[in-house]
Amino acid sequence: MQDFAITITPRFYETDALGHINNASIAAWFELVRMQFIASTGERAGEPATNWVLAALNIDFIAETFFGTDVIARVTDARAGNTSLTVVSEMSQEGKLTVRGKAVLVHLDAETRTPSPLPQALSGAFATR
Amino acid sequence: MQDFAITITPRFYETDALGHINNASIAAWFELVRMQFIASTGERAGEPATNWVLAALNIDFIAETFFGTDVIARVTDARAGNTSLTVVSEMSQEGKLTVRGKAVLVHLDAETRTPSPLPQALSGAFATR
Amino acid sequence: MQDFAITITPRFYETDALGHINNASIAAWFELVRMQFIASTGERAGEPATNWVLAALNIDFIAETFFGTDVIARVTDARAGNTSLTVVSEMSQEGKLTVRGKAVLVHLDAETRTPSPLPQALSGAFATR
Amino acid sequence: MQDFAITITPRFYETDALGHINNASIAAWFELVRMQFIASTGERAGEPATNWVLAALNIDFIAETFFGTDVIARVTDARAGNTSLTVVSEMSQEGKLTVRGKAVLVHLDAETRTPSPLPQALSGAFATR
Repeated sequence: MQDFAITITPRFYETDALGHINNASIAAWFELVRMQFIASTGERAGEPATNWVLAALNIDFIAETFFGTDVIARVTDARAGNTSLTVVSEMSQEGKLTVRGKAVLVHLDAETRTPSPLPQALSGAFATR
Repeated sequence: MQDFAITITPRFYETDALGHINNASIAAWFELVRMQFIASTGERAGEPATNWVLAALNIDFIAETFFGTDVIARVTDARAGNTSLTVVSEMSQEGKLTVRGKAVLVHLDAETRTPSPLPQALSGAFATR
Repeated sequence: MQDFAITITPRFYETDALGHINNASIAAWFELVRMQFIASTGERAGEPATNWVLAALNIDFIAETFFGTDVIARVTDARAGNTSLTVVSEMSQEGKLTVRGKAVLVHLDAETRTPSPLPQALSGAFATR
Repeated sequence: MQDFAITITPRFYETDALGHINNASIAAWFELVRMQFIASTGERAGEPATNWVLAALNIDFIAETFFGTDVIARVTDARAGNTSLTVVSEMSQEGKLTVRGKAVLVHLDAETRTPSPLPQALSGAFATR
């Protein structure tokens, strides 16, 4: 797949007393990039981004992220399972890789809120696992 | 009324790079203290705390709040209007007043989500404006 | 002054169980717009945006803000006092005014962290109170 | 080791529009429980909890967490490496396991902010890896 990328401008309240961006803010940024990625793909499939719940989140903090410079957040890989989607993301600041993460999402039926297979239009948009 | 008080232990991610608790975290703490206050009163009246929306919020930041010491958050006054409630709160740390604020809440009908008069049981629990 | 405006794309984690953007997220957005405003002005005066602390915050919640549509956040007025700055902001969504607020900031000496007069270059950039 | 446990009362602003606690809030709770755990151990060793940075975070979301009921957050295992500490946590609500996670922290020298071996007093408090 082609990389999907967004720019995140760190907000001052996302810093902490160690002078860098707090890890909980970075976990929140992962929601941001993956929801925009799913929204951009799902729109083509007529699916809202809210039909997904997070099953697992893994984040490696490779270097500190600071206030004052934009962050580029990319989705570098996305693999569809039967009812799930695995999204790999990387963040960088001034060209330096700062964070790498992986999220496993489960696709829910909008009515029953239970796991349901990805619609054809959606699974076709991602590589299969 | 008698003061209603809760203890808030500042969380590290609520600090910012200036080394103190960020103002947005303190605004969030106001929701915490007023919802627990309304819940404690509303339970007696059979009303959930979620039947209220915030109409106005005023906060005076009197002194910095720091990580590492508990904050006492009090509701020092609450006045019922016809469809509204004004809640006054104060926060202190190590006996020093740090924050004073006032929130105006509007009572909503659970079905229509439009302003609706406070039920007798609830308005009786607060001083009238 | 000419309006200063930024676009804020609401993030899913900024919603709450009432289905709209939570008031604490909106208080945080005020920090965002006023810091970007001060940064844009302060840069011209060689001053970092972190030389300010918040003394007071007043927010009127005029209409609900929702996920899924961009918010325009404007600074519509800014008045310099001797050691303070009052910033008025408005937010709107789909052309509808949703939030109006006012923040009073105190200018600190970078060394002593005590109130200090605005440098000439900075006070000249704002209307005086 | 004996379990270390704290009680977390979910806050309304930690919910999202899906009606449950947002995953970013839960990532933040992990910081809360591990810092209180490290503080409780570190105090005995004369070490502040801020001498650690997060290197990796893995969270499995096993069941939804809801507003209105307390969460018990436990540290069930902690293993010391040479300059690192691996902390395993579990959260439950009404006796039901909701979240399991693991954090890898790196111990920093307070002056140089580079990885430094755990002091004897501290490494002795944890099982070794």
